[in-house]
Amino acid sequence: MLAHYLKQIHEKTPLIHAITNYVTVNDCANILLASGASPIMADDAQEVEAITAICGGLVLNIGTLNSRTIDSMKLAGKKANELAHPVLLDPVGVGASALRTATANELLKEIQFSVIRGNISEIKMLAAGTGTVRGVDAAASDTVTKENREQIIAFAKAFAKETGAVIVITGATDIIADSTRAVLVKNGDPYMAKITGSGCMLSALLTAFVTANQEDIFTAVLAGVCLMGLAGERAEAKRAAAAAGNASYRNFLIDEIGLITPEKLEAGANYEAD
Amino acid sequence: MLAHYLKQIHEKTPLIHAITNYVTVNDCANILLASGASPIMADDAQEVEAITAICGGLVLNIGTLNSRTIDSMKLAGKKANELAHPVLLDPVGVGASALRTATANELLKEIQFSVIRGNISEIKMLAAGTGTVRGVDAAASDTVTKENREQIIAFAKAFAKETGAVIVITGATDIIADSTRAVLVKNGDPYMAKITGSGCMLSALLTAFVTANQEDIFTAVLAGVCLMGLAGERAEAKRAAAAAGNASYRNFLIDEIGLITPEKLEAGANYEAD
Amino acid sequence: MLAHYLKQIHEKTPLIHAITNYVTVNDCANILLASGASPIMADDAQEVEAITAICGGLVLNIGTLNSRTIDSMKLAGKKANELAHPVLLDPVGVGASALRTATANELLKEIQFSVIRGNISEIKMLAAGTGTVRGVDAAASDTVTKENREQIIAFAKAFAKETGAVIVITGATDIIADSTRAVLVKNGDPYMAKITGSGCMLSALLTAFVTANQEDIFTAVLAGVCLMGLAGERAEAKRAAAAAGNASYRNFLIDEIGLITPEKLEAGANYEAD
Repeated sequence: MLAHYLKQIHEKTPLIHAITNYVTVNDCANILLASGASPIMADDAQEVEAITAICGGLVLNIGTLNSRTIDSMKLAGKKANELAHPVLLDPVGVGASALRTATANELLKEIQFSVIRGNISEIKMLAAGTGTVRGVDAAASDTVTKENREQIIAFAKAFAKETGAVIVITGATDIIADSTRAVLVKNGDPYMAKITGSGCMLSALLTAFVTANQEDIFTAVLAGVCLMGLAGERAEAKRAAAAAGNASYRNFLIDEIGLITPEKLEAGANYEAD
Repeated sequence: MLAHYLKQIHEKTPLIHAITNYVTVNDCANILLASGASPIMADDAQEVEAITAICGGLVLNIGTLNSRTIDSMKLAGKKANELAHPVLLDPVGVGASALRTATANELLKEIQFSVIRGNISEIKMLAAGTGTVRGVDAAASDTVTKENREQIIAFAKAFAKETGAVIVITGATDIIADSTRAVLVKNGDPYMAKITGSGCMLSALLTAFVTANQEDIFTAVLAGVCLMGLAGERAEAKRAAAAAGNASYRNFLIDEIGLITPEKLEAGANYEAD
Repeated sequence: MLAHYLKQIHEKTPLIHAITNYVTVNDCANILLASGASPIMADDAQEVEAITAICGGLVLNIGTLNSRTIDSMKLAGKKANELAHPVLLDPVGVGASALRTATANELLKEIQFSVIRGNISEIKMLAAGTGTVRGVDAAASDTVTKENREQIIAFAKAFAKETGAVIVITGATDIIADSTRAVLVKNGDPYMAKITGSGCMLSALLTAFVTANQEDIFTAVLAGVCLMGLAGERAEAKRAAAAAGNASYRNFLIDEIGLITPEKLEAGANYEAD
C-alpha cells in the first residue's frame, strides 16, 4: 500500500518551496532530490508568493527564525492556502524563546496547515499556545512511554481536530494522528539523533509526500515517516559496517531515501494502527 | 592545452569572493578549495567592496536572493569592474519571480560580467529582459536538441555580443559562446541533476578558472566546464560502484575536482568546436 | 589527563549556542553532536538572549558577519557574561574589512571572552586593535617558525593577560596561552586547510570543551585542540587510504570527533609545555 505513495513522488516530481533554517537547508534540498521531488528555497518577502505559486507544496521551518523571514512565512503560507497547496509546519525549538513561541502561534492562527511535525515537547508547546487543547497533562513527561502513550495519542488527535492538520510527533516511536485515528511507526534508529537535521529533513520529505498524494494526506505522511525511519535503519547498518561517524551517517541517510524503492518501503515499513 | 588552465589555479591560488545562496554555499567553498583556489563569502553592504578588493574574482549567484544582499551584489560588482576583476553571474531561477528577474536585469545593466552561466531557460529569460536580443524563438523548447542546437548557438553568440560576456548554457550538452565562436562540451553525467548545487558549484569553479587565466577567458571557461563534467562522470562511476546515493555523489563530485590532475583533464576533456 | 575533559562532554552533554557564519554552520552543528554536545543556532536579536540563557556556552564567529547579527552577538555575549557562561570568539577574517575589524574590536571591548581562537594573522590584527598590546613585531611573519615562536608565545601571553581569555593561535603548530603559561600542540594535518570550516569547527568544539570543564578552561582548550588535530590526522589516513578528496575528508574529520574515545585522545595527544 505505502509503495504507491512513494511512486507518486517519482511520477509527479513535485516542486517544494522551503522556507527553512540555514543550518540544515542543504540537507533538506538533497533529501527532496533523493525522494524524487525538487526543492526551491526562497525567503524574501518580495518573492515568496511568486515562488509558492509555481510550487506544489510548502514547508515552513522556524529554526534560525529571523524578523525578515517571519513575514515571508506568513505571505507564503497564505498564498499556499489560497492555492490549496499543502503546507507543513515544523515548529523547531518552539518554547525556547518568546519569539519562536509567538511566531509559531501566529503561523498556526493565520495559516491552515496540512501537517504539523515536531517532537513531543514542541507539539505540546504549540498546542498549549492555542489555549484550547485539553487532555494533555502539563506535567506529563516529554518522553513517550508505554504508560503515557494512550494519553499522548488522545492529545495528538485532539490537536489534529483543533488544527485540521495531520499531527506527527517524532521520537523513538513516531505517532501520526488526525482527529479520528492514529498510527504508530516503529521504524527508525537512535543514531538519527546524532546528526543535525533529521527532523528538518523529515519535514521537507513529508511535504513532498503530501504534495504528490493530496487525495490521502494521512497515508502519505505515514509512508514518509516509514521511509525516513527505514532509511535511518539502513544508514545505521552502513555506518556500523564502515565503523564511521555521524557525518558519514548523514550521507548514508540521504542516500537511502533515493535507494529505497517503493517495494522495499512496502516490505520494510513497520507500523501499527493504534 | 586545457591542462595549463587548471595548473594556473594551482599556481596562483586565486582568492574568490562569492555572494551566493545559503543552500549550496558550503559546497561552493569546498569546490573552490578542491580546485586550488580559496573562497571568501561576505555579503554585507558595509564590507563587500573591501572583500572584493582583496580578492581576484567575484561570483554573484541570485539563489536565495534577498533585499539585503541585492545592494551588496551591486556594490561588489561595481568594485570588481573598477579593479578589472573577472565577475561571473549565475542567474539562478531568473523568471521564477519578478524580484529575481528585475534583479538579474539590473545586475546585467549595472555590471560588466566576464561570464554568465545558467541553464537554457535562465539564459533565455535573462536575454529576454534586455529587450534587444533577437534570434531566439520565444516558443523554442527549453531543451537543447540536435534540431534547435544551431539556433541556440546563434542565440548564445548574439547574447555574448550584447553583454560582452562569455555565455555558458549548461545542460546535457554544454554550450560556451562568445560573440564569434562556440564550443560544445559533452562531459558530464545525468546524475549531476540529482544533487542541489551542481550549477552553483560550476559557477564558483569557473570564477576560479577565469581569475587565474585572465589572458584567455574563453578557454579558461572551457577548461572549467570540462573539469566539472569530467568530475561528474568519475563521481558517477564511484557512486555506482558503491551503490550509493546522491549525498555520497555530492562528496565524490567535489573530491574529483581535487583528484583530477591537469593531465587527466587534458585526456578526459570531451568537447568540439561548433 | 586529557581523557577526563572529553568524558565531561559525554557526561554533561552541554548545549551550545552558536552565532556563526552560514558557510560552515552545518559542519559546526555536526561536530558539536559528534563530540557529545548539542548545538542551537539562533541569531535574531529578539531571541538570542533567551537562547543563550537556556544554553551552557556561546560561540561568536564573525564569518559572513552582517549588520543584523552584530547586535545579536553583543546581546548574546552580554547575557552569557551575566550568566557566567563561557564565551568563545572566532574573529574570522578580522582585518579583511573595516566592518570586521570594528566589530571584532567592539565585541572584545563589550564582552568578556573565555577563549579567543584564530590564526596568527587574525590574532595579531585583533590585538593591534586594542592598541595596548606590546611585544609583537608588526613586521613579524604571519607564519609561526622556530625563530619567531618564542616571540609569538610572549605575544599570546600578553594578549591573554590583557583580555583575560585563553588565546588559541592555530597553525602547523598550535599555541595555547593564558597570561602565565603556554602549550604547543603538534597534532594536526596540513590537509585540514583543504576544507572550509576547520577553524570554525574547532571554535565550536572548544566551546563544548570549556562549557563542560569550567573548572579548568586552559586544559579543556588543550584537550579540544588535541582532539581536533588528532581527528585531522586520522581523517587524513582514511582519506589517503580511499584516495579520496576534500569533501570526503570533511566527513572523515567530523566522524573522527565521535570515534576518538577519551582513551584514544589521551594516547594520541601530542603537545608540550613551552
